Amino acid sequence: MKEKIIIFDTTLRDGEQSPGASLNIYEKIEIAHQLAKLNVDVIEAGFPVSSPAQFDAVHAISSEVDKIIAGLCRANEKDIDSAFKALQPAKHKRIHTFTSTSDFHILGKFGHEKYGVSLEDKRKTILKMTSDSVAYAKSLCEDVEYSAEDAGRTDIGYLAEVIEAAIEAGANVVNIPDTTGYTFPTEFGNKIKELKRRVKNIDKAVISVHCHNDLGLAVANSIASIENGARQIECTVNGIGERAGNASLEEIVMALKVRGDIVNFDTDINTREIYNTSRLVSGFTGILVQRNKAIVGENAFAHESGIHQDGMLKNRDTYEIMTPELVGYPNTKIILGRHSGRHGLKARLNQLGYEVSEEKLIKLYEKFTKLADKKKEVFDNDLRILMGDTITEKDEFYSLDHLQITSGSKTIPTAVVKIKIEDQIIQESAIGDGPIDAVFNAIERALSIHPEVESYNVRSVTSGRQALGEVLLRIRSNSISFTGRGVSTDVIEASALAYLSALNKKNAHFKLNEKFNKENELTKVG
Amino acid sequence: MKEKIIIFDTTLRDGEQSPGASLNIYEKIEIAHQLAKLNVDVIEAGFPVSSPAQFDAVHAISSEVDKIIAGLCRANEKDIDSAFKALQPAKHKRIHTFTSTSDFHILGKFGHEKYGVSLEDKRKTILKMTSDSVAYAKSLCEDVEYSAEDAGRTDIGYLAEVIEAAIEAGANVVNIPDTTGYTFPTEFGNKIKELKRRVKNIDKAVISVHCHNDLGLAVANSIASIENGARQIECTVNGIGERAGNASLEEIVMALKVRGDIVNFDTDINTREIYNTSRLVSGFTGILVQRNKAIVGENAFAHESGIHQDGMLKNRDTYEIMTPELVGYPNTKIILGRHSGRHGLKARLNQLGYEVSEEKLIKLYEKFTKLADKKKEVFDNDLRILMGDTITEKDEFYSLDHLQITSGSKTIPTAVVKIKIEDQIIQESAIGDGPIDAVFNAIERALSIHPEVESYNVRSVTSGRQALGEVLLRIRSNSISFTGRGVSTDVIEASALAYLSALNKKNAHFKLNEKFNKENELTKVG
Repeated sequence: MKEKIIIFDTTLRDGEQSPGASLNIYEKIEIAHQLAKLNVDVIEAGFPVSSPAQFDAVHAISSEVDKIIAGLCRANEKDIDSAFKALQPAKHKRIHTFTSTSDFHILGKFGHEKYGVSLEDKRKTILKMTSDSVAYAKSLCEDVEYSAEDAGRTDIGYLAEVIEAAIEAGANVVNIPDTTGYTFPTEFGNKIKELKRRVKNIDKAVISVHCHNDLGLAVANSIASIENGARQIECTVNGIGERAGNASLEEIVMALKVRGDIVNFDTDINTREIYNTSRLVSGFTGILVQRNKAIVGENAFAHESGIHQDGMLKNRDTYEIMTPELVGYPNTKIILGRHSGRHGLKARLNQLGYEVSEEKLIKLYEKFTKLADKKKEVFDNDLRILMGDTITEKDEFYSLDHLQITSGSKTIPTAVVKIKIEDQIIQESAIGDGPIDAVFNAIERALSIHPEVESYNVRSVTSGRQALGEVLLRIRSNSISFTGRGVSTDVIEASALAYLSALNKKNAHFKLNEKFNKENELTKVG
Repeated sequence: MKEKIIIFDTTLRDGEQSPGASLNIYEKIEIAHQLAKLNVDVIEAGFPVSSPAQFDAVHAISSEVDKIIAGLCRANEKDIDSAFKALQPAKHKRIHTFTSTSDFHILGKFGHEKYGVSLEDKRKTILKMTSDSVAYAKSLCEDVEYSAEDAGRTDIGYLAEVIEAAIEAGANVVNIPDTTGYTFPTEFGNKIKELKRRVKNIDKAVISVHCHNDLGLAVANSIASIENGARQIECTVNGIGERAGNASLEEIVMALKVRGDIVNFDTDINTREIYNTSRLVSGFTGILVQRNKAIVGENAFAHESGIHQDGMLKNRDTYEIMTPELVGYPNTKIILGRHSGRHGLKARLNQLGYEVSEEKLIKLYEKFTKLADKKKEVFDNDLRILMGDTITEKDEFYSLDHLQITSGSKTIPTAVVKIKIEDQIIQESAIGDGPIDAVFNAIERALSIHPEVESYNVRSVTSGRQALGEVLLRIRSNSISFTGRGVSTDVIEASALAYLSALNKKNAHFKLNEKFNKENELTKVG
């Protein structure tokens, strides 16, 4: 019997902090349900005090998903109260509070002399903040996790002192983050070992680690920590997160699984949901997975060179250390055609791991038949896209009624759009540097707006000729970014839909903020 | 003074074996020049016997680039002769030969009883093949590297025996590949340590490692090997390669650099060329780098969350362990406008690390002014794209003379193309499921072809509204894939250009093969 490693997923908190990866509340809820199906142990759902949207998402996920739900908060009563309030509906709540412990962070973020004049004084202040905040959190909630931010660069003596104080104050999980992705595996492993040796009450808490990937070592550091006593791993789907991201959930889980011959640890993850989860997260965040990404990349199970193909034909073990089926990689590609009925669609969706209500199925089937009219074959990934599509629709304020394009190498690209806004219809035309630019210009003219288009990506999601194109774009307005997503066999239509979807998110965001500010009189924090 | 780690770049060999990453000879030469500028120590330029295109590329790079050039070959005289012939013009040649040593590979690839009946017999056969081939290679070339394929899963006793025999036969570099990306850092480090202990003549050779990333551990395994005695690292730019790819050059180099405080090793890499190299490789191979990729991803130096931004403003060290400038990340974005002269263009290209001949500059400037007419600001990445564009043009057999599109939500997408083939002009029209499908249909109808479109990607390369769109697509014809690339502010035009560029590559490939087969009477191998 292997010892269990707790998987703490922070895709919805640290992952969503990736530049440009903003998720709306429906997308967050959908991802949380998928994480539950993946069977992670803890879902960190957000940072409630930081914005109304964060608060609402943590609250909604707490109501709907039966896992341990964690909410992040800084070490003060206002933050902790907000987290606890957001977590209220959860059956299993965890308050996750943190202070900064490295000299870099103490001097950088606690430079003001109100925290003390010398480094020594500041350290004392932080030690007290840690004890006080953990004790306060514990007075509200049984399950309290404490993190020592930038522990990777924190002096081991001071770190041991802070961790001991946190446990003393009631923390049942103590997390050691390598916040800047700075440490080497042997170094970080030794840090965990040394903490176990120095911290007197360490047996009263679970040791957790949270590794960043700035030097490409996040997974290795997580494994080195397990080898030295950590029993909870904080990670994200596809390894997304601040800068170069966090340790990738799928890599850690599969490393322990594949090397069961040499490690005595395993997780409760349902590995067959890994691929579905990866697709869902990349679709909603707009952060594409590179082809050569381990476990979930398009090439992860593909073999190109003649020598390798030859070896593979002779014996699959020659170059394959795990089967694609084990991570839920789609094995058959062609699945449905225009004559497939609603029942066939539902059956296939279930096989792919989706559960759909009758109401949703009706909507989906309508989209499916439209698509099947255009394409001879509908692939698994087409269905994944259709699934994603019906989720984001709930926020629809603007919708595309009509689109018309003229373009070419010696023509001036021209677009005509008709946009529906509630009961109103606006139509406009514009020229541009290309047809997509023309469409964006026409939309902007129709709505009298002019946000910045920060990024624009198209991915084809299936291998057929009439592949569905999925456009992911990011606009920035009032210094906040919104990601939009549009799907069509026509890339220009997909672009228009993506643009309107980003505008719909923006609209929902500001409406929500307004409502929240009125109700809670909470101001937005840094 | 730090001990030097030799960087053996295999982007052009293992990297090019990534499914779909086929490079033409001009792209390979351009990448080789960039690798020289990055100052790698060894460039593995290809696997000469495997195809005429491989042979020619190794030969051309050997003529042009003044670094150690390695050519891969299996353990037989025909392969070794071909490699040596291809390397002929190189000032510093290295023959790199390999045998398979793990039981998985021996039983999978040497199953036939001509190699021996028992595993023991087969092992003896392989040991002899190793000695014979290394000795033969040494008779031709001073610098011989031997690799034990799948050493990661090879029994240590047999591995030590084979390595000792290879050194005895003359190998001056012995490479220990973790071919299937299977090992853990402590395990792989111990394997290197144990080889140093067991192999009597180990001091006569440099120990090299070659790690794959199937479990996300390639960089950590490389570092663990260095800590235990390896002094050459085989790696690729952006970590591309078979399946989940190889250890990423930029991550290893920067890990050693950033952690100079705890490691006594360094490389000769010119880190300021890392970003340029990454862009060039992703542009030519069509393998995009994910936003959260360490060192070279779009987000690697970006900070999103309020807390982090606040920390960053107070002190850059709070969340940044290296500066973007150190890896040549573009720091200023806006650079040139329509009034910039040829001199300004040249100066900026030089700053970006490109050297351009007068002839090339004339061509580039023409493209630049066309672009500057459409865009108010021309960004560094636009220039990178223009640079790449002029390289692939040499193979132009088909070119786009005219394009015209009608499309929209209630229109049938229609395309008209005029294609130039040498002196001939063909024009055709077609409808499709979207405007891009219509363009592809029209091209195919004009040329009477029907290849499979395997993948289609668009990336916008700059942040402005009129961003240049770069389309990367892959077609498959006669079971060979070709990547095409097209750039325009109009995504449909870019798509047509990409399609024709893939067809041009296909055309060049078959012409070259024909010529080569006639001249060399060499048959294509596995």
